[in-house]
Amino acid sequence: MLNFSVLLKLRDSDTIAAIATPLGEGGISVIRISGSEAFSIGDKVFMGKGWLQDGISHTAHFGKMVDREGKYVDEVVATIYRAPNSYTGEDVVEFGCHGGYLVTQKALTAVITAGARNAEPGEFTKRAFLNGKMDLSQAEAVGDLIHSRSEAAYRSSVRQLSGELSRELKGIRDELLNLASLLELELDFSEEDVEFANRQLLRDRLEKAGESLDRLLKSYSVGKVYREGVFVTITGKPNVGKSSLLNALLQEDRAIVSAIPGTTRDTITESISIDGVLFRLTDTAGLRETTDSIERLGVERAEKEASEADVILLVMDYGERDHNDTEPIYDQLKFACKAKGVKLAKVWNKIDLYKTQSPRSPNRATEFYISALTGEGVESIKHGLSRMMLSEGINEGSVVVTNARHEGALRRARESLGLALRTLGEGKSGEFVALDLRSGLNAMGEITGEVTTDDILNNIFSKFCIGK
Amino acid sequence: MLNFSVLLKLRDSDTIAAIATPLGEGGISVIRISGSEAFSIGDKVFMGKGWLQDGISHTAHFGKMVDREGKYVDEVVATIYRAPNSYTGEDVVEFGCHGGYLVTQKALTAVITAGARNAEPGEFTKRAFLNGKMDLSQAEAVGDLIHSRSEAAYRSSVRQLSGELSRELKGIRDELLNLASLLELELDFSEEDVEFANRQLLRDRLEKAGESLDRLLKSYSVGKVYREGVFVTITGKPNVGKSSLLNALLQEDRAIVSAIPGTTRDTITESISIDGVLFRLTDTAGLRETTDSIERLGVERAEKEASEADVILLVMDYGERDHNDTEPIYDQLKFACKAKGVKLAKVWNKIDLYKTQSPRSPNRATEFYISALTGEGVESIKHGLSRMMLSEGINEGSVVVTNARHEGALRRARESLGLALRTLGEGKSGEFVALDLRSGLNAMGEITGEVTTDDILNNIFSKFCIGK
Repeated sequence: MLNFSVLLKLRDSDTIAAIATPLGEGGISVIRISGSEAFSIGDKVFMGKGWLQDGISHTAHFGKMVDREGKYVDEVVATIYRAPNSYTGEDVVEFGCHGGYLVTQKALTAVITAGARNAEPGEFTKRAFLNGKMDLSQAEAVGDLIHSRSEAAYRSSVRQLSGELSRELKGIRDELLNLASLLELELDFSEEDVEFANRQLLRDRLEKAGESLDRLLKSYSVGKVYREGVFVTITGKPNVGKSSLLNALLQEDRAIVSAIPGTTRDTITESISIDGVLFRLTDTAGLRETTDSIERLGVERAEKEASEADVILLVMDYGERDHNDTEPIYDQLKFACKAKGVKLAKVWNKIDLYKTQSPRSPNRATEFYISALTGEGVESIKHGLSRMMLSEGINEGSVVVTNARHEGALRRARESLGLALRTLGEGKSGEFVALDLRSGLNAMGEITGEVTTDDILNNIFSKFCIGK
Repeated sequence: MLNFSVLLKLRDSDTIAAIATPLGEGGISVIRISGSEAFSIGDKVFMGKGWLQDGISHTAHFGKMVDREGKYVDEVVATIYRAPNSYTGEDVVEFGCHGGYLVTQKALTAVITAGARNAEPGEFTKRAFLNGKMDLSQAEAVGDLIHSRSEAAYRSSVRQLSGELSRELKGIRDELLNLASLLELELDFSEEDVEFANRQLLRDRLEKAGESLDRLLKSYSVGKVYREGVFVTITGKPNVGKSSLLNALLQEDRAIVSAIPGTTRDTITESISIDGVLFRLTDTAGLRETTDSIERLGVERAEKEASEADVILLVMDYGERDHNDTEPIYDQLKFACKAKGVKLAKVWNKIDLYKTQSPRSPNRATEFYISALTGEGVESIKHGLSRMMLSEGINEGSVVVTNARHEGALRRARESLGLALRTLGEGKSGEFVALDLRSGLNAMGEITGEVTTDDILNNIFSKFCIGK
């Protein structure tokens, strides 16, 4: 009788298929099939010169795809990969068919009808992880790479994919593992009361490992910005020039940005790239203004805006400078931003009307003098945004943590290490120190997947797109 | 010194590259490179176990892609195809990289920087045609296949791609070619006044060829519908239930249709599939109604609506049946539709209010009794639309002409054949008949590309997407 876990196991080893290329119209689409039945299923729909199951790994075969009734589906190229030398580590067939909505769907349907199961989001990459083709942080990098929309996000995910973070973590883990093993060894000889690990040396080595973790944790403030971009809210009273500022900021980058769907005007959020980082600019004009005039800006709304942003640009009319500075709108925002750790900058607009020049280096990086109309000073906002968010810059080449899950695990590892150091300081037996270290090692193991649970895996791979 | 045509020739033989998969996010994107330098360019960006130029045709190679500065671009699989055994008939490298906007763009940039030129729309398929990998009607079928959005469009383009139309045309061409050659042979023996071709037999064979052309020409009325779908305009006075009818027609199919972008509500055109054919329904309510009330419907607007539709559904309130029938709105539409060859149907809506039942088989296929509210009779409109447009049904398996260019060429071929028959009937010398036949053969040759001009080619391939 099959029990539940055997059923689960079966489910993980059946043969799956999905459209692996983006949906849309193009020259080619690829249907990927992975699992022990990949070749026999492939042979049911493919009519070429020979059988795919007789083919050599890493070869491409031209032929016809037919459906169950023998109807011609498309001309295809079948590329076969034999386990374990494939993306998933399993037998894989990739059918390259013509890239249209309907024809791609027809091809997938033919493959599913022939016995494959529709793959779940991220299931190919999950199998690659389970079969040891990549560790968990690399699998996550695949997802980040696909969704990356800025140079910084792209670059950091490519580096993570290449195993950079895994190698850095392995160095720290190996060190902690050595120390824990030494301490545990003492336990075996406890009656003899030996200390294999010199306590001062132990402390030094633990502190050094802690510093490595601290460096990684610190990199996250920049890494998060690399990966997710910076959310900037442009706010202010009506007619101070919020939309004009947004347009002025977008001007050069518009062409690049509009090539990417989902950032259209009607969502009132546009993206620009500054120093390779994506800044998502939201103009609070438009939708919100009509229903909730900024004249009635209350604490609640200021808090709402602050909670949705990394940076708030408060646009004000330069001509009203004197009384604006003390206005409730600024105070409320300042209070809310401080509470939420959000950066707040003042933008004095319309300096062209008052024959003022934007100071070349404003005293504070959080105050700008501009004319959205003439474009004067707009560049200084870009520099300012870059300085605000990327000031804790990291050295070119040093490893950056970009993922909140990794940061959480690192933080727990760091806490365990701190605990180990305190336990050590209290002169307790080595076994207690070792326990703390093991708990830290576990936390670190979650990042690369040496230690993992179904929950962690499902949470990670369900965010992938189908076909990856 | 290079002259212009040599330069053109060079341009056609340089190495081109493009993203061959649809743009978007997915597991895989493919960069296709084609031309004599495909391998050497590929080797500049690809770092695998060996050189691509040493690889065997139809093999896949895992490796890293790097840019000119040696920066890691992505993990890729390079599949190589050696001329002439490739899609284009040239040396081809296909790089499968991760499918994100940015990473795909980076990979293409690396390839272009390494020496490839950005491919023009349809340029890969154009080269496939020029290198004899497919004829022109098959190349066109590739484009149709990619853009097909209905079962009928998909099915007819797959059949054309398989060379069905080409084979049918070849049969007719071979026959006409034989006859023309026989007649031209007579010319060589003109002093001896022989007739190689029996005149009665000649007439019979020409007439039979003419019938084959007629059958193909006739199939176009259905083929056009298969390929392009049917444009249906729903019109009528305000509040007769135009939008309700549209919604009722859409109801079941909504899910299928909304999976395809570009058919959203805000264009007020929605598509449904009836018997595998795409019907594009446009509701004249909304946009137009606000600016140009139908109460003031004039001849001009009736003509405009007729010129944009294949079918017009005029919705009227059943309760106003008696005086509606003689209303100017119907007469104007009827007149305009007749002039444009557009089908016009009356839809009597709101029968639920008048406790009327929709007749099971209305006398005319162009008059319907429905309730958009309860859904009664809505099915009968679908059947009616199908009957109107697909009544000149063609036998399963017979060849269908779907392309306006083909229809035009066939029409010219048919005219030449008619001319040949007339010339023959006038008892003129065989050489004159042969001239007419040659002109018909030329016209038919345009379809498959035996006879072609740069204009024809550019016109065809410029409509393709880039990467195909």
